[in-house]
Amino acid sequence: MKVLVGSPGTVSGLLLRTGQCLFAGASIAVMVSASGFSSYTAFCYLIASMGLQALWSLGLGCLDSYAIRMKRDLHNPVLVSLFVVGDWVTATLSLAAACSSAGVAVLFARDVEFCRVFPLLSCSQFEISIAFAFVAWLLIAVSSLVMFWLLPSV
Amino acid sequence: MKVLVGSPGTVSGLLLRTGQCLFAGASIAVMVSASGFSSYTAFCYLIASMGLQALWSLGLGCLDSYAIRMKRDLHNPVLVSLFVVGDWVTATLSLAAACSSAGVAVLFARDVEFCRVFPLLSCSQFEISIAFAFVAWLLIAVSSLVMFWLLPSV
Repeated sequence: MKVLVGSPGTVSGLLLRTGQCLFAGASIAVMVSASGFSSYTAFCYLIASMGLQALWSLGLGCLDSYAIRMKRDLHNPVLVSLFVVGDWVTATLSLAAACSSAGVAVLFARDVEFCRVFPLLSCSQFEISIAFAFVAWLLIAVSSLVMFWLLPSV
Repeated sequence: MKVLVGSPGTVSGLLLRTGQCLFAGASIAVMVSASGFSSYTAFCYLIASMGLQALWSLGLGCLDSYAIRMKRDLHNPVLVSLFVVGDWVTATLSLAAACSSAGVAVLFARDVEFCRVFPLLSCSQFEISIAFAFVAWLLIAVSSLVMFWLLPSV
């Protein structure tokens, strides 16, 4: 069977999971350090969604490193189906969270100019956190596509 | 070859495309009729994205009805690859637009209470339009999954 880049139980898969976990964690850290984020539903949802993303990627990263160390093959139908469902659910939630927060950040920066009117609002931190969330989503989207592609071949 | 529900050139495929086109059109119509939508970037982006979605689904709906009438088979690798890429791009853009608008609508209704403070703002119309956009996204997500599933078998 052909092993795709990013497959479960490979070094590239482990790197993808590590990247997802790091960017999701960075997104949470930057958002939590921004003052006043908790007044806005979209930013709280971003933290919840990135938290779920980080946990999921951490779990799968641990499984990948175990499989690499023990030279175990993770390409079985039950495991790959589980990975597909989990990856697609977390990818959709991450994109939804990143986009809803981006909508609010653009509103603050351009449409109602809250960032100019209320200088205490940490607009730049909101934007950095959202950028990290989009990078985390890009990485989980790559994993999701690889898993979905693998599904018919296992 | 097994024909999946929602495949190109089938009646179920045509129904899916019609649904996508109708809900995307309804979302645009409701948003355009809301007063003051044009001051908010997220709502303008929703209209642009739903417009693209409606055009794409209309085009593919016409192709489906042509294939049904002429009894042509649309399951060839080049066409299905094109459908996969187009469906995934429009699905991602639609979800992004619906979520960013939903983020702004929740902010207006709950976080900053603009809907209560400015009764002229058509909050309920924004919400109906976003609900239609989410239905359109659900239908295009079904099409995207069917197309991606078909790809290895053509």
